Amino acid sequence: MPSVDLNADMGESFGPWKMGDDAALLKIITSANIACGGHAGDADVMASTMSIALQNGVGIGAHPGFMDLAGFGRNRISMPRATLQNQIRYQVAASIGMARSVGAKVRHLKLHGAIGNMTSEDEQMAKDLYEAALSVAPDLIVMVLAATTQQRAVEALGCPFAAEIFADRAYNDDATLVDRSKPGAVIHDADLAGKRMVEMVKAGAIITESGKHIPTRIDTICLHGDTPEAVQIAGSVRSSLESAGITLRKF
Amino acid sequence: MPSVDLNADMGESFGPWKMGDDAALLKIITSANIACGGHAGDADVMASTMSIALQNGVGIGAHPGFMDLAGFGRNRISMPRATLQNQIRYQVAASIGMARSVGAKVRHLKLHGAIGNMTSEDEQMAKDLYEAALSVAPDLIVMVLAATTQQRAVEALGCPFAAEIFADRAYNDDATLVDRSKPGAVIHDADLAGKRMVEMVKAGAIITESGKHIPTRIDTICLHGDTPEAVQIAGSVRSSLESAGITLRKF
Amino acid sequence: MPSVDLNADMGESFGPWKMGDDAALLKIITSANIACGGHAGDADVMASTMSIALQNGVGIGAHPGFMDLAGFGRNRISMPRATLQNQIRYQVAASIGMARSVGAKVRHLKLHGAIGNMTSEDEQMAKDLYEAALSVAPDLIVMVLAATTQQRAVEALGCPFAAEIFADRAYNDDATLVDRSKPGAVIHDADLAGKRMVEMVKAGAIITESGKHIPTRIDTICLHGDTPEAVQIAGSVRSSLESAGITLRKF
Amino acid sequence: MPSVDLNADMGESFGPWKMGDDAALLKIITSANIACGGHAGDADVMASTMSIALQNGVGIGAHPGFMDLAGFGRNRISMPRATLQNQIRYQVAASIGMARSVGAKVRHLKLHGAIGNMTSEDEQMAKDLYEAALSVAPDLIVMVLAATTQQRAVEALGCPFAAEIFADRAYNDDATLVDRSKPGAVIHDADLAGKRMVEMVKAGAIITESGKHIPTRIDTICLHGDTPEAVQIAGSVRSSLESAGITLRKF
Repeated sequence: MPSVDLNADMGESFGPWKMGDDAALLKIITSANIACGGHAGDADVMASTMSIALQNGVGIGAHPGFMDLAGFGRNRISMPRATLQNQIRYQVAASIGMARSVGAKVRHLKLHGAIGNMTSEDEQMAKDLYEAALSVAPDLIVMVLAATTQQRAVEALGCPFAAEIFADRAYNDDATLVDRSKPGAVIHDADLAGKRMVEMVKAGAIITESGKHIPTRIDTICLHGDTPEAVQIAGSVRSSLESAGITLRKF
Repeated sequence: MPSVDLNADMGESFGPWKMGDDAALLKIITSANIACGGHAGDADVMASTMSIALQNGVGIGAHPGFMDLAGFGRNRISMPRATLQNQIRYQVAASIGMARSVGAKVRHLKLHGAIGNMTSEDEQMAKDLYEAALSVAPDLIVMVLAATTQQRAVEALGCPFAAEIFADRAYNDDATLVDRSKPGAVIHDADLAGKRMVEMVKAGAIITESGKHIPTRIDTICLHGDTPEAVQIAGSVRSSLESAGITLRKF
Repeated sequence: MPSVDLNADMGESFGPWKMGDDAALLKIITSANIACGGHAGDADVMASTMSIALQNGVGIGAHPGFMDLAGFGRNRISMPRATLQNQIRYQVAASIGMARSVGAKVRHLKLHGAIGNMTSEDEQMAKDLYEAALSVAPDLIVMVLAATTQQRAVEALGCPFAAEIFADRAYNDDATLVDRSKPGAVIHDADLAGKRMVEMVKAGAIITESGKHIPTRIDTICLHGDTPEAVQIAGSVRSSLESAGITLRKF
Repeated sequence: MPSVDLNADMGESFGPWKMGDDAALLKIITSANIACGGHAGDADVMASTMSIALQNGVGIGAHPGFMDLAGFGRNRISMPRATLQNQIRYQVAASIGMARSVGAKVRHLKLHGAIGNMTSEDEQMAKDLYEAALSVAPDLIVMVLAATTQQRAVEALGCPFAAEIFADRAYNDDATLVDRSKPGAVIHDADLAGKRMVEMVKAGAIITESGKHIPTRIDTICLHGDTPEAVQIAGSVRSSLESAGITLRKF
């Protein structure tokens, strides 16, 4: 039977503001993408989130984004590439050191928000940002959106990677995500989300909205945890996978 | 004959704003304290300053401060100790990774501005912040204000350190710096600054405004470079030391 | 029978981060102290909070703080007075214009967090900051902690003011608040909070932890809304006052 | 003889970082576009720049930009329109209040950097942002890039405006500026800059790189002051205009 990893973004609280139920999610997932103080997170949040991840045996990833706190890294910013590369280096570096200070280790990278979206459309940008991260930590495993230009970028770079699909997002026929503004783009039904994931993992393929199968490596499934509903979906996906005999294992 | 290191704060530009003549100073000094993006500096500035330091054979130091850009880290902030420790970790971590990305290495730590001042008065705070930095990078050499509680803190911690005196600042009889608001606190005469440093290094002592000698280890001399005058003083101190037969050498 | 105003801090969400249940609280209170984008809040949050306040007939106040988002304005910062005055001006100015753009009007001022605390201990600082705010908006009513140096400052300035007591905080015998770190400092019992407020408003006095009565003008009662419990206390205080025949009325 | 106004961006220092020689420029220009603390400037810088402008009889304008300090407002950001409108309101509001506190008055608006560029290409965006500013201050005169969609936007809104041309930038045949990355885009020759402005003002037309005349209202000429060279060009343009008998007068 196949195995798969479950990942989620977290460590997105900031100062006095809480976001997401990281503690609950860290009991469900096997890999945590932890914000680096750019689009979210701060030094306290990073340290405590990494500590809890470590205690739960969850793999720790750096999750850098545009350094735009007010926009949560979701706005596209037309900045010079070299500057963006240095901002990625900076955030990855901060993650690595914060992890070290709590006795943990950063082992993967996942790009956040708008830079995640932009690099799933622009292979050169993906390469540039992954190279930037690898210049700080050459042994990072890069988490990529399966079957997108992100995956082509890591294949071209020849670095280790983990291919990711989304539990709660519908897919277009080119393996990109259906835009959030469209009906059906986000799946709110926990059972449906679990069932889809079992199907895709067993098929070794992304199954699009239209029913098309896009064969792909599937190493990890992205869950969300920013709402109570999201945590429920995460739990449901985990149960569905386990019930179907799929092993949940850190990549 | 004795030898001594020359250090200066730098990498304090931010975005489009330039500060200091780092390139000029990097030809004079042997150790650079590079801002970490907290009170000053950004990822681009860190990368380029570290590269030039490396090319000039200058030792690279992390120079964290209060994360108060508008205040340049000069305001005292009554924040929770654990939060400040994490902010120090974060900045030191960022420095280490940025250095790695340009093929360089961070080998020392110097606290900036208000946290520099506060830790020269409060031994527990100094210990707490040094321990925070060492939890990220255990082999850092800690630069301390000679003969202050900073030095007592590193002695208590048992970590390697470098004791520093100031070329352009007058001293009180307890080895603290005369407050900048007082007349004579800052030395603007390049010849005088050079002459004082030769005397102190030869004496192995801080010589205070009143003429008192406070015997101390002197490993490094702090220069400034934020004004044309400051770069001139830096050059003069270097010449004076060399003329007096004192070797300039990275600690 | 006496009347009294009920106020609460709000508009403290930021970007994607929510804080407090402002909509619920705006049905209970008569005056809203709305963050100005310094320690909390942003332009969107200000606009929408002011709109809802306006719809509910709630008086709108500017609630400036130290411009330290990460610290939520709760850390004391030793900055130059003139700079702090300008930062107060800036925040008050932003409030006034945002209010105008939604058809509302800022009619009072309340200082937030650490500058609230500092000005309740330092009359000169209180005067300086109130004067700064009044230089932007000369007809502001200044909300002061009753019977503290804040009140002495507005009396010295001769400007209109509203004296405030806290529903959920215990008092020291000098009319300052018992430090949050001490047991009993914060009142979590909704009934108790309501009962105390009725007593104090009827007595025209702050009743301290020791039982001492400090006669004072009481124009408004501060409620909190950052937790579900807090909203419950707020509702309870309102009910208790109404049951006791005290009219709730905007100052 | 025609008259014309001379404007320049200023108040772009931040905290300890200086930018531009505002004092020199304020002796040359008749209108100052003062940063609002979004992309540059801070409360101290705003207050002091406005005071000096007032002393020199120079008209004061709010100069809002993307709230991206590190990028100086030069990066395009794909943010929600309503949020950007509120950020414009916030900055304009802050300007108005800061001006009031120094006894001055904001009488015009000019959009900065990337939002300036974007609104010269997108009429709806221009309208949206101008309306946002006018919702705070209905009597603002809007400074627009002459003969671009910015001008069409103010004409559609029916608000008072001032049409601007650039002293040191070459023009394309559609009245947009030649991209900075192209040779000849920026004019560094002070005499040439002055001569061109006299020609354009007398012709009542933008004269493009290809020699085409685009007839347009010309109310004001934009000068720069961020380099010593720029101040020299500014002075030269003023002299050339005066020598040609053109009156310099605040619009």
